[in-house]
Amino acid sequence: MKGKLIVFEGVEGCGKTSQMQLCQEWLQNLGISVVITREPGGTELGLDLRRLLLEKADNKPIAEVTELLLYAADRAQHVEQELKPHLAQGKYILCDRYIESTIAYQGYGRQLNMSLIEQLNYIATGGLLSDLTIWLDVDVEIGLSRKRGGEAALDRIEQETIAFHQRVQQGYAALAAADPERIIPIDGTLSKEIVHQTIQQVLRDRLSWG
Amino acid sequence: MKGKLIVFEGVEGCGKTSQMQLCQEWLQNLGISVVITREPGGTELGLDLRRLLLEKADNKPIAEVTELLLYAADRAQHVEQELKPHLAQGKYILCDRYIESTIAYQGYGRQLNMSLIEQLNYIATGGLLSDLTIWLDVDVEIGLSRKRGGEAALDRIEQETIAFHQRVQQGYAALAAADPERIIPIDGTLSKEIVHQTIQQVLRDRLSWG
Repeated sequence: MKGKLIVFEGVEGCGKTSQMQLCQEWLQNLGISVVITREPGGTELGLDLRRLLLEKADNKPIAEVTELLLYAADRAQHVEQELKPHLAQGKYILCDRYIESTIAYQGYGRQLNMSLIEQLNYIATGGLLSDLTIWLDVDVEIGLSRKRGGEAALDRIEQETIAFHQRVQQGYAALAAADPERIIPIDGTLSKEIVHQTIQQVLRDRLSWG
Repeated sequence: MKGKLIVFEGVEGCGKTSQMQLCQEWLQNLGISVVITREPGGTELGLDLRRLLLEKADNKPIAEVTELLLYAADRAQHVEQELKPHLAQGKYILCDRYIESTIAYQGYGRQLNMSLIEQLNYIATGGLLSDLTIWLDVDVEIGLSRKRGGEAALDRIEQETIAFHQRVQQGYAALAAADPERIIPIDGTLSKEIVHQTIQQVLRDRLSWG
């Protein structure tokens, strides 16, 4: 019995949260045991780290290498405490952001040393990759305007420049091109229902069902 | 103008705190600009991480790799925000624990992968070593009994077994043997005043004064 790690990725406002909920309900209705989680912040310890990483840190500036190490610490804890045990129990895990976010945001977005990022991803995960990564592909401007129409204040990451987010988007495109069997782009600008049906189809096709 | 990074190391209760204070007063009386700092917790961000690392984490168990990554994050932030700027200003930095603590506690004590530790130390510091490391060498039992006589409750690290602390002690001994020009053992069981005079002598001898 071996579960599946299904990761949802994309720029701010791409619709991950709604799609993960729809996917969870659909899988549960099929009788599949599903867990929803996220990075950063998928563990008790990770919640403290997520707060440090995402809150406006005016009095506590975070160096770039520090940021990478904190994401890696959050990930290491999440892998040990949540992902590995749930996979061992045969569960389907829907995870909001994973390795690909670090490559896209810190590697492409902040343009930090990519081999350092890959080194830290490996240290944190012991090599655990997703079984499938759904990349909800929306234009940066569309995603940010969705967020800005919402109620919550923009956090530190969301306030980064448009240029930063466009580099992130290019990162996702490069990742999907390099690993097309595992990282699947889905047009996130279509209606919520169409996107959900496409995700259903991708999961049916890719996860060796039936 | 280039400062000096002087690190104080040793097992719990070895007398680092008192000796750093005496050393600071002595250097200041010589007209030298001195900064005292520590790891973990030498920065605002680091204080939050120190709290996570040292408090009893009954509800938030910390995986070993996570712990290493958090110490590395604290160190990266400390190096960027405190050590490098003060060294550039020509200051003497007295630092309570640095790279050698991670090797002794996580490498020898917890017996984690040493090449991983060295990799993370390098990532966090960019290769910045101490100019001089003072290892206050006291028997583990003596150190712990000093701590236990004190008022404060023992923290998570202090509660580790005696065997753990003995491995830590062996780690310090190995480090001092491998780099005798930079890592200097001083018998921490002697009187506070004698230890202080010995430290004065070591600094005079090793830091190219006069």
